[in-house]
Amino acid sequence: MSRPGEAKIAVIGGTGDLGFGLAVRLAKAYAVTIGSRDASRAAAAAARAVTVARVRVEGKTNEDAASECDIAILAVPDLPAADFLSSLAKSLREKLVISPVVPMLLKDGVFSLSLSGESAAERVAKALSASRVAGAFHTVPATRLAQLGEELAYDVLVTADSRAVYDEAARVVSSVGKLRPFYAGPLTVSRLVEGMTPALLNVSKLNKLRSPSIRLV
Amino acid sequence: MSRPGEAKIAVIGGTGDLGFGLAVRLAKAYAVTIGSRDASRAAAAAARAVTVARVRVEGKTNEDAASECDIAILAVPDLPAADFLSSLAKSLREKLVISPVVPMLLKDGVFSLSLSGESAAERVAKALSASRVAGAFHTVPATRLAQLGEELAYDVLVTADSRAVYDEAARVVSSVGKLRPFYAGPLTVSRLVEGMTPALLNVSKLNKLRSPSIRLV
Repeated sequence: MSRPGEAKIAVIGGTGDLGFGLAVRLAKAYAVTIGSRDASRAAAAAARAVTVARVRVEGKTNEDAASECDIAILAVPDLPAADFLSSLAKSLREKLVISPVVPMLLKDGVFSLSLSGESAAERVAKALSASRVAGAFHTVPATRLAQLGEELAYDVLVTADSRAVYDEAARVVSSVGKLRPFYAGPLTVSRLVEGMTPALLNVSKLNKLRSPSIRLV
Repeated sequence: MSRPGEAKIAVIGGTGDLGFGLAVRLAKAYAVTIGSRDASRAAAAAARAVTVARVRVEGKTNEDAASECDIAILAVPDLPAADFLSSLAKSLREKLVISPVVPMLLKDGVFSLSLSGESAAERVAKALSASRVAGAFHTVPATRLAQLGEELAYDVLVTADSRAVYDEAARVVSSVGKLRPFYAGPLTVSRLVEGMTPALLNVSKLNKLRSPSIRLV
């Protein structure tokens, strides 16, 4: 396997807090490209990475970023539309794809999972059937990721259908702040892990906590 | 509201690790009765509490324990049968009932939730419609609860349909070791919290961790 420094990571949808925070932090160990539907927004986010964090990040369309990468992270706010995923399937063949996606709804002030009975990671794996898909980063608050002074001493549960894919994803997780990856089982249990995000959002709101994450003890 | 010391807690099904650990620890602040289907098993568990922990705990049938208590904890290993809950409904009217229940299945070595789409806490609340039901304690490992030297410095997410019921349940949680309660929303989101238990069991197994619990950070 290549060392992190040689691998190229595409942060698909990398202009939001989650994607930008990941891109900037991963840029210390990987060659990172921020992808966006709009190439000029991607370029602006990449320029901001240089200014804010003094790291080199490129900005491209999602398609170009996906084609050129070794590893892709789907840093999108909700489950991507099926045709969006299909459009990337060929570019992402035989690559590691990490899904931090948590499809949620907010109803009567309460956060819950919006997909019934399935996880985003499983949907992604179905749409990208020739990729190696892992679920990770769900409980790392985007706002803290984007605050580059935060050390992120959190634990991250990672789902993947094999220990080998877990190991690849764990290496990416470990390269972000002080995140510690733990293998949480196959994609079929991703929903348990994705569900922690709305649970934490409810806890945050009801107990006036600022962007809580978790540690195993 | 009465002070903890004046309230009577029934630990229904209190002869297992979870129930016994809770009973012994709660006995420092509450008058505790261990309930069991079998009065002699309840009495034996109560006698063990006296010997092991030098606390006074009574042992009775579940029915008697439920009748006499102010607060009941359903310390049972799986979702109780509907007729078992019905049999306690009258005794538990207008009382606080805490559900730590996590219905799980283990298939191909992977733990997951066994109820589809609903939580144990919601099922309990339906069966005990005249009680005040809260979900709590799910992520506190039974084995650590039962080891009385463990200080239990964990965070506990509590679900309840009102802040008032949460507050009552939170007082019980706070009286166990160093557990810190956090309000996680109404019973409709209990499944997100219950799902953390199989997630932690998978993490434990796959990463060789001993009975992990969580803390918010």
